[in-house]
This record gives sequence, structure tokens and C-alpha cells, in this order.
Amino acid sequence: MSILVSNTKIVTQDRQRRIFEGNVLIEGSKITGVSKKPINQETEWKIDGRGKLLLPGLINLHTHLPMGLLRGYGDDLPLERWLTDCIWPAEGRLDPKSIKIGSELGLLEMIASGTTCFADMYFFEEEIAEITEKIGLRGFLGFSLMNRGTPELKPEEMHPALSQFIQKWKKNDLVKPVVAPHSCYTCSSEILTKAAEFAKKHGVLLHTHCSETKKEVYDCQAEYGKRPVELFKECGVLTQKTILAHCCWITKAEINEIAKAKAKIAHNPISNAKLATGSVPDLREILKANVSVGLGTDGAASNNDLNMFETMKFASLLQKHQYEDPLALPAQKTLDLATLGGADALSMKGKLGSIEEGKLADLILIDLRHPHLKPLHNPISTLVYATKGCDVCTTIVNGRLLMHEKRFLTCNYEKVLDEVSKVALELTK
Amino acid sequence: MSILVSNTKIVTQDRQRRIFEGNVLIEGSKITGVSKKPINQETEWKIDGRGKLLLPGLINLHTHLPMGLLRGYGDDLPLERWLTDCIWPAEGRLDPKSIKIGSELGLLEMIASGTTCFADMYFFEEEIAEITEKIGLRGFLGFSLMNRGTPELKPEEMHPALSQFIQKWKKNDLVKPVVAPHSCYTCSSEILTKAAEFAKKHGVLLHTHCSETKKEVYDCQAEYGKRPVELFKECGVLTQKTILAHCCWITKAEINEIAKAKAKIAHNPISNAKLATGSVPDLREILKANVSVGLGTDGAASNNDLNMFETMKFASLLQKHQYEDPLALPAQKTLDLATLGGADALSMKGKLGSIEEGKLADLILIDLRHPHLKPLHNPISTLVYATKGCDVCTTIVNGRLLMHEKRFLTCNYEKVLDEVSKVALELTK
Repeated sequence: MSILVSNTKIVTQDRQRRIFEGNVLIEGSKITGVSKKPINQETEWKIDGRGKLLLPGLINLHTHLPMGLLRGYGDDLPLERWLTDCIWPAEGRLDPKSIKIGSELGLLEMIASGTTCFADMYFFEEEIAEITEKIGLRGFLGFSLMNRGTPELKPEEMHPALSQFIQKWKKNDLVKPVVAPHSCYTCSSEILTKAAEFAKKHGVLLHTHCSETKKEVYDCQAEYGKRPVELFKECGVLTQKTILAHCCWITKAEINEIAKAKAKIAHNPISNAKLATGSVPDLREILKANVSVGLGTDGAASNNDLNMFETMKFASLLQKHQYEDPLALPAQKTLDLATLGGADALSMKGKLGSIEEGKLADLILIDLRHPHLKPLHNPISTLVYATKGCDVCTTIVNGRLLMHEKRFLTCNYEKVLDEVSKVALELTK
Repeated sequence: MSILVSNTKIVTQDRQRRIFEGNVLIEGSKITGVSKKPINQETEWKIDGRGKLLLPGLINLHTHLPMGLLRGYGDDLPLERWLTDCIWPAEGRLDPKSIKIGSELGLLEMIASGTTCFADMYFFEEEIAEITEKIGLRGFLGFSLMNRGTPELKPEEMHPALSQFIQKWKKNDLVKPVVAPHSCYTCSSEILTKAAEFAKKHGVLLHTHCSETKKEVYDCQAEYGKRPVELFKECGVLTQKTILAHCCWITKAEINEIAKAKAKIAHNPISNAKLATGSVPDLREILKANVSVGLGTDGAASNNDLNMFETMKFASLLQKHQYEDPLALPAQKTLDLATLGGADALSMKGKLGSIEEGKLADLILIDLRHPHLKPLHNPISTLVYATKGCDVCTTIVNGRLLMHEKRFLTCNYEKVLDEVSKVALELTK
């Protein structure tokens, strides 16, 4: 597929953070031209970008894709009751069919709201991989490991299945397999260690939860006599190919350990606030220590959606509020986290996160013809503080049009919405 | 105008918070029928409500309508620099023409995102009143009073103009005049006292800022030896017809004073966080004291939009986060604040805020055919945690259709967007 987007305002996110009126050429999976001058080339698709902003697709660094099925199921409960009375029983009823439809819902949501790449962690990851490839998003898909097994696999079945998963998807263009030991409170130190060895052996990323709640930290200290980051370090989990989701309750010493190991952090401000985690990572300290940070939505059951524009605004405002500092996380820095930060966390720094020749063509267009986007004093402020997911009109991943002028091109949207309601009812009855 | 909305899911917000499939009849400015059974009546408009949610229009209890012109102008600055370098110089250039177009932009934004009634406070309120009446929203319009006068009026001109404003609009159906001494740091105790007498004499509401920042409280203590709420009480400002915007830095004793006086609070969580106010009102304490609370966006320059759905989600999540309590502000309570709470604060308890026979017909329809609104386990959770302003498809105010199937029926939307950009450029050059 070849696409030419012309006469549009390009938010490049390049090294100089340039913004200019111009044209972008996409050939195959890559961006092959970015220019202020007209590009005269025949392409299959010609997109008129007037009155629009073109920017790199947003990267959702932490989610549990099929949990959209449980959106709004058991909200406003204490965390323990939410998990034991609602989420876990429903998850116990999951099967490949429900996973597929739940994932498709999540993929639609992301396409509609400008996310082009995501890091997932769930069960039945094989089904998630197949539908992700079919619909066409870029997915870093975490195969979950837990002491007690998963709704899909007994403990002894997990590692062989993980091996198979990695072999199958390792060379795929869109889907990348990831090793995902769930957390230090659901995985023994043996499982953590084995997961780290597995990830290293296969050269893939490792994705885990880290210090989301106080209880998790206290329990870890009680069991191991150390905090989660230290435990992870001892188990070999803390490497530059590791994504630590949450890190709400980490100390300055732990920030330094994470920085030293070059591990990455996925910050999920909306989920953390909704579950009343009570703390947010101090991004000023973390970024000062040169730790790579990306933003995530977490699963839709604790958000309750997968909207990265909302996540950007919330991330910035929560930092400002928490640290009584209007400069705590400015708009440009926030957009950086959701694009370049996510790319770096996924070891895709040279390939994703900005609009530059040679990079992969993951791009979105924002339609500025809405009252809440006028006037346009500052495009970056507008993107972070005023733009909504629904202002995205076109979504391109790996050079393929997934949504154009708000129409989904790679899936039957009406059918998905109808099926989701039926499947969700079965899960929660 | 008469309208029948049929076969829709009605979120009544009545005393029992009933939600049921049914039909709603609107005749003239009022709701004249709410029924589970079919309503057989000829009407000018027939709206098919299948696959939609009908709910009371949201009430924005604190905004500065024309400030949309300054959306994104000077973000991420310390408060003082933002005001002195950006906002105040631009406001100094305002004139009736820019006010009119800025207000029209704000009205469009509110119609598009489900707000049907708002409480404003700004300059050139006469122009705001005229365009509000023309476009058709319900506005409680605060005529600003300040020591130094306003961009429109010299100090000695303020009170005669206020008198005229009240006389002109007092009996209007849609526009209600409000006395708005700006704050204790911009109004002397004499102006505050006179404003209170004025409001009382004319039987209108009073709207003012209260304890938004720590500095404001400290300065008040330094000048008067007392905190703002006590000063307001002494000046006669604290009555049941008073709306106090913000109240971020109030003590328990002040909550009790506000409760005793039956004064109301407009909570603006997004603006407070964006300006790094550093504190949020403890709504659990405030609501326990039986103080009426509504939600507001504040002006778009510090938000950066007028989206009450975003405000509901942010309000709930900020309370949960701040007080480490997932039950701090549940979804139903949050929706109550944005509907019934706002209505009560505006002394419109019996007339607005719920879908019941005899109430004014301020209603909105949500189109549920979007991935992020599926499945629908709990309509209230969906409304507060997942619905976006752009999911509103129809907006009705005072029995008049202002937007239907996303088309604006009372204004030239394209023209407004074009003019806004020109006017904004002039203001900030």
C-alpha cells in the first residue's frame, strides 16, 4: 500500500520537535518522504490533510486487551472485593471465543482513538495475537505466567506454551511476543527467575507489574525481606528489555536501580487513580534519572476505556496536582511519553515514535474542525489538553489504513459491537 | 415545539434513580410525559431512541465562556506569569465583537458535549446574554465586579450597568442575571457588601471565587485577619443563593459555615489540577455536611475545554486518588453532582436535573454505538467513566432542539470556527 498525506500540519516529534505544514509519503510499511515541498508521486491513497494535524500514532504501554468485556462491571468497590467478587470469577469463564471478541473490541477502541501500538499482558495470548495481526495493530503481546496457572493453562503447561508462542510470533512484523510474569505477588522467585532467563534466551521483552499498591510492597517485604524492585533485580528481571507497569510506590533508591538497569516504566495514571492506589510515580524524579517512561491505560475494567488522549491529559494534570507544580509535566513532555517514550520502552526507538523518513508508518490524523479544538494557539497544548480520542479521523499502522474518515477498514465494526454484548452477558451471569 | 423520544433507555435521575426503557414527551419548554408504555401523540419531532441513553442535560456550574479564545495560550506557566504575561494582556483587548464570537464558540462546545445549562462569570455579560438567548442554552450569567473595574467598565460605571443588566434579563426564560463580585482579592469588603445587598434586593444569585489558591487565603488573612469564608460571611455574601467557586483550601470550620448558610460550592477539578492548585475540596466531608455541590469546567484557558463528561470522570478519580478511597465519589454520586447538584446550586431544584413530568425539558441523548461504550454492564458507570462528550448526539434545551444527530440547529457552526481563529489571533498578537 502507498499513501500520500498532503498539505497537513505535521507534528513530527523529531529531535527538534518541529511542526510544519507539509506532505508525508508512505510506501510499504515505512515513511519514505517528509517534506515542506509538494511530493509528486502516484500513490494508491491520497489523503487531503488540510485542517488536520498529522502525528505519530500513540503507544499504549500497558493494557489487558480483552478486559473491555468487563468495562463497568463492579466499579466503585474496594480493590479486594472488585477482584474476588467480580473480575476473577468472570475471568474464570473466559475462553478463546470471548477472548477473541473482547480483543477485537479493544483493537477497535484503540484504532478509533489514535493508538497504533500497544503492550498487552493477559491469558489466551495466542488468540490475541491472531486477531491483532488480522485487524492490523502493532502489538507487543505478553504471555502471562503465574504460580497458580492461568484460566487457560495449568502451571506445568505454561512454559511449553510460552515457548511455542515465542517461536510462532518471533519473526512477525506486527506481533511481537513478550514474556510476562504477572507480578511478585502472583509469581514465586523461581518463576520470575525462569521468566527472565527465557526472555534473555529468546531476546524478547519482559513485562510485569511492579509496586502498584502499598499492600504489594508490604507483602513482598514480609515474604522476601526486600522491596519488589530489589527482588526483581535479584531474579534477573531488571534489564533494559523490561517494562515495569505502575511503579506507584517506589523509593528514590529504587528509581536509581531502575535507571542503572535501564529498565522502563509504564505509567497508568487513570487506572491508578480509579483504583485509589493513593500514590503516583514522581515523573520529575524518574525522568531526571533518565529512566524511559511510556503511558498506558491499563485494562478497560479499571479505566474504563483505552483512550490515550485522555491518559495524556490525566497524566499531566495528576503530576501538576500532586506536586503543586504547573510545570511538573508540560504538554510537550507528555506527548513525548506517549510517542517516543513508549517507543524507547519497547526497544523501538529508531523505528517508532516520530514522523521521519525511514521510520515505520504508524500515524494518525486529527480533524481540527471541532469547537473544542479552536483556536489553535499551540498545537502541542491542543493535542494534550483539548484533543479527544474521537477527534482522530484516520489511523495508519505499518503503512496500512485501518480507519479513514472515521470508517473502520479492517473489521466489521457493527458485528463486533453486537457480539460483545452477548459474550459479556455470559461472562458475568 | 413538541418532541417525542421513543424506545430509549432513560436515566431519570429521579428520587429512586430509576433507569428504564421508555418514552419521553416534551411540549413547549417542559417534559409532559415519561412512560414505560408507548406515548401516542402527534409531535413535530419524533426521535428514535433505540440504542441510546436519555439523561438530564449536564449543568456546568462555573465557567468564563469567552475564554475559549485563549485555549492553549500560555499553558505550562506558573500561575502568576500565565496571568500577567498572557491572560490579562489578552483580556485587555476584548471588545463586544470578540466576546460574542468567543461566547458562541463556548456555547457550541457545550451543546456538542451535553451541557444544557451553565453558570458564567465574565465581562461584557450583556453580549454573552444576547448570544446565549439566541443560540438557546440556559445561562446564569454573572456580571463581574472588581475594584479596578473591568475591561468593559470603569469602577464607577459598574453598578449602574449591573442594575440595567438585572432589569433587562430578570424575567427572561433562558438567561438569568447573577451578581458576580470576582473574589476577595479583587474586590474590597465594600464592594462585596454592596454586591450582597444588590443580589438580595433583586432576588438573584451571587457567584464568586473562593479559596482557589493558598496565596488567596494567606493574603486574605494578612489583609483582614480572617479567612475568605469568614470575610464573606461578614459581608453578607454567604447566603443560600451564593455559589462559591473552587473552595480548594477550606477548613472543616469553613465547611460548617458554608453548610449553616446553605451556600453552594462549584467544584472545578480539571482547572484546579491544571493550575496546580495543590488541593481539592474533600467532597466526602462537604457532602456529609449537606452542602450542595455542582461541577464546573472553569474557563477553557485553564482546562482546556468545556467538557462536563471529562469533568465528571476527573472529579471522581481525583477524589479516589486524593483520599486513597475507591468509594470516595462513586459514579452515581458524580452524576448527581453534574445534574441535581448543579440544579440545586442554581435554586432550580424542582425545575432541572432530572427527567420527570413537569420539569424543564433540558435533555441529552448518548449514542451507545461506539466500541468504548460496549458492553453496558452498568449505565451509570458507563456515563461517568467511559462516555465522552462527543458521544452526545442530541441536545435539547427548554424543549428546543439545539443539536440533533450531531448537527447544530441554531447556529452556523462553520462560520463560528472560521471567525474564532481570526479573532483569537488579534487578541494575542
